[in-house]
Amino acid sequence: MKKVTVIGGGTGSFVVLSGLKKYPLDLAVVVTMMDSGGSTGRLRDQLGILPPGDLRQCLLALSDAPLFWRKLFVYRFQSGDLAGHNFGNIFLSTLEKISDNYHDVVRTASYILKTKGQVIPVTFTNTHIWVKYQSGKLIKGEGNIDKNYQEKTRIIKAYLKPTAEPNFQAIQRINKSNIIIIGPGDFYSSIIPVLLVNGIKAVIQKSQAKIIYVLNLVTKFGQTPAYSANDHISDISLYLGRRPDIILINNGLVPLDIIKWYQSYGESLVVNDLNKREYKGKIIKADVINRNKFAKEKSDRFVDPMVRSILRHDSGKLAKVIYKIIS
Amino acid sequence: MKKVTVIGGGTGSFVVLSGLKKYPLDLAVVVTMMDSGGSTGRLRDQLGILPPGDLRQCLLALSDAPLFWRKLFVYRFQSGDLAGHNFGNIFLSTLEKISDNYHDVVRTASYILKTKGQVIPVTFTNTHIWVKYQSGKLIKGEGNIDKNYQEKTRIIKAYLKPTAEPNFQAIQRINKSNIIIIGPGDFYSSIIPVLLVNGIKAVIQKSQAKIIYVLNLVTKFGQTPAYSANDHISDISLYLGRRPDIILINNGLVPLDIIKWYQSYGESLVVNDLNKREYKGKIIKADVINRNKFAKEKSDRFVDPMVRSILRHDSGKLAKVIYKIIS
Repeated sequence: MKKVTVIGGGTGSFVVLSGLKKYPLDLAVVVTMMDSGGSTGRLRDQLGILPPGDLRQCLLALSDAPLFWRKLFVYRFQSGDLAGHNFGNIFLSTLEKISDNYHDVVRTASYILKTKGQVIPVTFTNTHIWVKYQSGKLIKGEGNIDKNYQEKTRIIKAYLKPTAEPNFQAIQRINKSNIIIIGPGDFYSSIIPVLLVNGIKAVIQKSQAKIIYVLNLVTKFGQTPAYSANDHISDISLYLGRRPDIILINNGLVPLDIIKWYQSYGESLVVNDLNKREYKGKIIKADVINRNKFAKEKSDRFVDPMVRSILRHDSGKLAKVIYKIIS
Repeated sequence: MKKVTVIGGGTGSFVVLSGLKKYPLDLAVVVTMMDSGGSTGRLRDQLGILPPGDLRQCLLALSDAPLFWRKLFVYRFQSGDLAGHNFGNIFLSTLEKISDNYHDVVRTASYILKTKGQVIPVTFTNTHIWVKYQSGKLIKGEGNIDKNYQEKTRIIKAYLKPTAEPNFQAIQRINKSNIIIIGPGDFYSSIIPVLLVNGIKAVIQKSQAKIIYVLNLVTKFGQTPAYSANDHISDISLYLGRRPDIILINNGLVPLDIIKWYQSYGESLVVNDLNKREYKGKIIKADVINRNKFAKEKSDRFVDPMVRSILRHDSGKLAKVIYKIIS
C-alpha cells in the first residue's frame, strides 16, 4: 500500500484524512503541536501540557470507533468550571498527566479511537510559533495569529520559540512516504508550524515522496491576505524547501452567497494565476468543494463547530481526486 | 452463583466491592445518587447532571480494566479551570450529556471499565438528602452533611427532597438477591440515601435475602456521633424496615496511634455493646482491619485520596470473612 502522509492539523487536514481513510492506503498524519487558542491554550497554560487540540482533531478524523466515542471527543461544555473545554482535550490532557511519555498518550488514544492510520505529533517540545508582519507587528502563538484577522499586511518571518526537536517517528515517516499531502488549511496556524520543527524541512527536501499541495479556497487576513495561487505556492515552497509536485485546485462553482459572505469580511476566493511557464509541476483541477454552507455530510458532525469555516473542501470528493492521482 | 448486592457508595462500599469481586459471586451494587460535595457537587450544579462521584467509585471498585483506565478515573486536576475535578467525574458527566438516558451512561461506563458485576444507580431523580439534628439544625445535601463535623447532636430525621423514584433495575435486583450487604460507610452520606428512595425499604423488607451489616470502625460527628454498635443497628434497622440478620464486627487490634489520632478529633472506636438478649441475629467477630495507616494495599491506589479515612477495613480480609459467611 502507498504510504501517504498528511502534514498539518485543523479543519483542512480533518477533511483530507476523513476522506482518505476510506481508501486502501497506509495513511499517517504528522500533526502540529503548536496550537494555543481557546480550550487548548488554557489547558496548555494551566496544566503545563502539550496542546491537545489539533492532535484530537486528527485522531477523530481517522477514528473508526463506535459513535459514542466520537460524540464524546467533540463534546464541548457550555457552562460552569468546564465551560468552553472540549472533552477530547480534557481526555488527552489527563492521559498526558498519567502517562510516562507522550508516545503512550498517542498510542492509548489511537487504540481507544481505533484510528485507521497513524497520528504522529511532529514534536514533543512545548513551543510556540511567532510571526512578524510587514507592518512590523510581532505575534506569539497560533491562537493569537488566528485572531489577528484585522492585520492586512503579509507575514515576512515565522519561527518557533523555543526551537523544537522533532519526534523521530515523524522524521522516519516522512522519509519513507510515497506521497506527502500539504493543505488545505491555514498556513501559519496549521501547516507551517510543522515545517518549522528542526529536521522536518530537510527530510522533506531529500525525501523521494511526491508532494501534493491542495490549494486553499479563500484568502485569510493575518495569514494569507489577498494571496493568489502563486503566492500560496511560493510561500509554502519556501518552508518546504522544494516546490510541490502536484497542485490540486478547485474548479467547482462556489455559490454566490458564500462568495458575498466572504467579501463582506474583505476576503475572496483564491485567484488562480498559475502560469505553466513559471510552475513546472502538474496542475489538477477538479470540483472538490462542499456546497453545504452548514456542514452536513456525515463526517462533518464530528468537526468541532468552533473551528468550522463556511466554505470547505468536500472530504469525499477531495479523497476521490487524490486517490486517483496517487494510484 | 449467589446473588450478592451491596448497598451504598463511598469508601466503605469500595472496600467491600473490590474485595468481593475476586470471588465467584453474582455481584451488584445499588449505589446512592445523592452525593453533592466537591467536584461532584459543582458538576451537578453547573451542568444539571446526576452526581457522578459515588457511581464512579463503585465502577472503579468493580473494574477489571487495564491500569491506565483506572489511573484515568481517579486522576484529579490540581490547577486551572479543572482544579479539583476528577477525570472520572468529567467522563461520566460528558457521557450523560451525549446519552439519551442514564442506563446508557452506566452501560457504557461499565463496558469501558470492564466491571465484574453490576453497578445500579438507585434512582435517576435529581434529589438531595436533608437531615434534621436534635439541635434543631437542618442541613441539605450529602456534601454539607459530610462537612458538618462540628455537630455534636444526633440526626433525628432524614428525607429526600424531592422524593425519588427508584430505578426499576434496583428494585428487581434487591428482590432476587440472596445476600444484601450494608456498610461499612457513612450512614447519612452513603447508605441511608439509598434506603430513602421510594420502594427500596419495602422491597428489602419483603426480600428473602439475608442482610449482612458490617459495623463501622469509628464514630463520626455529624452522622453517628458517639454511636455504639447498638446505636448503629437501631438506626439502620429503622431505615431498612428490618433488623440485619448478621452483624460483622471487627475484633482486630487497632494500633494505638490511630486511636489517639481519632481521639484528638473527639472520635473513638465504636463500642460493642451488643447483647445477645436484645439482638437476635448472628454476630460474627473477625480481624478485618487494614493496619496500613496510609492505604498501601494494591486496590487502594485507586481510592480517591480526598475521601480516604485513616482507619479502614481491609478489602481482602473483609471479603474473605463475608465469603465464608455466604458459602
